Amino acid sequence: MSDAPYRYPFQVRLHDTDAAGVLFFGHLFRHVHDAYESLMADLGFPLHELIRNGAAPGAAALPVTHAEASYRRPIHQGDRIEVLVTVADVRRRSFALDYSFNDREGHTRATARTVHVLTGVDTGLVLPEDLRRALTGHEDATDGSPTPSD
Amino acid sequence: MSDAPYRYPFQVRLHDTDAAGVLFFGHLFRHVHDAYESLMADLGFPLHELIRNGAAPGAAALPVTHAEASYRRPIHQGDRIEVLVTVADVRRRSFALDYSFNDREGHTRATARTVHVLTGVDTGLVLPEDLRRALTGHEDATDGSPTPSD
Amino acid sequence: MSDAPYRYPFQVRLHDTDAAGVLFFGHLFRHVHDAYESLMADLGFPLHELIRNGAAPGAAALPVTHAEASYRRPIHQGDRIEVLVTVADVRRRSFALDYSFNDREGHTRATARTVHVLTGVDTGLVLPEDLRRALTGHEDATDGSPTPSD
Amino acid sequence: MSDAPYRYPFQVRLHDTDAAGVLFFGHLFRHVHDAYESLMADLGFPLHELIRNGAAPGAAALPVTHAEASYRRPIHQGDRIEVLVTVADVRRRSFALDYSFNDREGHTRATARTVHVLTGVDTGLVLPEDLRRALTGHEDATDGSPTPSD
Repeated sequence: MSDAPYRYPFQVRLHDTDAAGVLFFGHLFRHVHDAYESLMADLGFPLHELIRNGAAPGAAALPVTHAEASYRRPIHQGDRIEVLVTVADVRRRSFALDYSFNDREGHTRATARTVHVLTGVDTGLVLPEDLRRALTGHEDATDGSPTPSD
Repeated sequence: MSDAPYRYPFQVRLHDTDAAGVLFFGHLFRHVHDAYESLMADLGFPLHELIRNGAAPGAAALPVTHAEASYRRPIHQGDRIEVLVTVADVRRRSFALDYSFNDREGHTRATARTVHVLTGVDTGLVLPEDLRRALTGHEDATDGSPTPSD
Repeated sequence: MSDAPYRYPFQVRLHDTDAAGVLFFGHLFRHVHDAYESLMADLGFPLHELIRNGAAPGAAALPVTHAEASYRRPIHQGDRIEVLVTVADVRRRSFALDYSFNDREGHTRATARTVHVLTGVDTGLVLPEDLRRALTGHEDATDGSPTPSD
Repeated sequence: MSDAPYRYPFQVRLHDTDAAGVLFFGHLFRHVHDAYESLMADLGFPLHELIRNGAAPGAAALPVTHAEASYRRPIHQGDRIEVLVTVADVRRRSFALDYSFNDREGHTRATARTVHVLTGVDTGLVLPEDLRRALTGHEDATDGSPTPSD
């Protein structure tokens, strides 16, 4: 759709923090997935529809198979964060997204990556062409060519 | 089964707390439900089986329709808590549980109550007799007689 | 400030739900507190400042001492909810808030209440007059007169 | 202390899952940190004491600076999991832990890694020798020699 990152703003809440006074590292992944859900809806693939259909026999799902995050600067209650999402990689049946958690001064407080793999009974599954095209439009890379494996 | 309360121990973890240095009030309800899940398995009604079967057409579920908690003393990371669960009420198609969060000195740090109602397509549903009997065995009250309404 | 309820919109996310396919009852309280945090900032009392100052010796805090919720209709991933917050009660050193979780058709899916009590070393503490006035402006009741006890 | 992995058992609860019917990937990190907290207490360094002391001026903390997880097989409500924790690396002021989430048949459902870095005002900080020794005793590797950088 565009080369610009997808932007997802949120404000850090009390329940995001812990007794050490800053964001509990694990809670970052809730916001990672919120940004992903918002992006997918924006691309025309609302996750809640995929998940409801996923209950049907033979249906495919797109679970997270890998997630990681690096924490550069502390994140506090009340901080206003903008998540910038870019597509890191699109393959035959998987894709990877990169997330940058930026504060209002433009400093990156944390980064994250998720990998999503199409799974289902049918082992010959590939990503739907329209999803691939939508993701590729959001792709970050200059070379974004899908690699052959996976 | 017994007149004694059901006992569920746990230790308060970092992610249970927030930047105010104590348990975030909303996280208490995770432990409330953990104690309930543990009790139900102990009574022979493991929730994960009810929930899987609940996906079947016409099946019934037992959602929480009301929950409340009162917080008497602060709860900190590292605290060892024992939840004492008692059956407050059993009716035709609903029941209520009481929870007491006690520390190692026997002080009650918090209390909670949940109400569970049998729901399903069939409006004539009543609690299975064996579940009612199992709950009544755990019942707290001297009079435990189900009240007519509900 | 106004007699109209304070409005806090949000969208239900995947992590709000559980394997029964609907919102996990305990997660509602995260959104309850998000609405409360947003209201307090709107009134000029951002919670993250109160909490940071609360670390100072002799400082006062405003913990939740009671919370409850009733669940009327299932809440699903993707649902757009508006929380309507009203002030239920303001006393000398405590106040209570009511929350209504409404869907886009205006149906109330759930309701909640929280009670907040000023606590600190000084037992003679009362709510700051400007906070009381700000809350009273948002008050729901026609009679909103603080009751003598508490 | 020992070459054997540290073992932390838990049972997957309803609130660990989401509407897709399996563990929400982000919730794995709560259990990752629970296992870490339990290990640290076992080694004689209870985290809640470190965190309380961390509020003191000049004190050091041990935040997670990187976390990642890979999800191999679905994890369901009711599953009994044992987390095996091993020390992957110990450096001058940081260490890394590996986690394996195994089911009762010994299959690995997920793996995770966390990196912890000593931070504080004093840039010359190094890990306390007794903590380093305790961690090294739990170390996995045959070569476990701390690498020079970091």
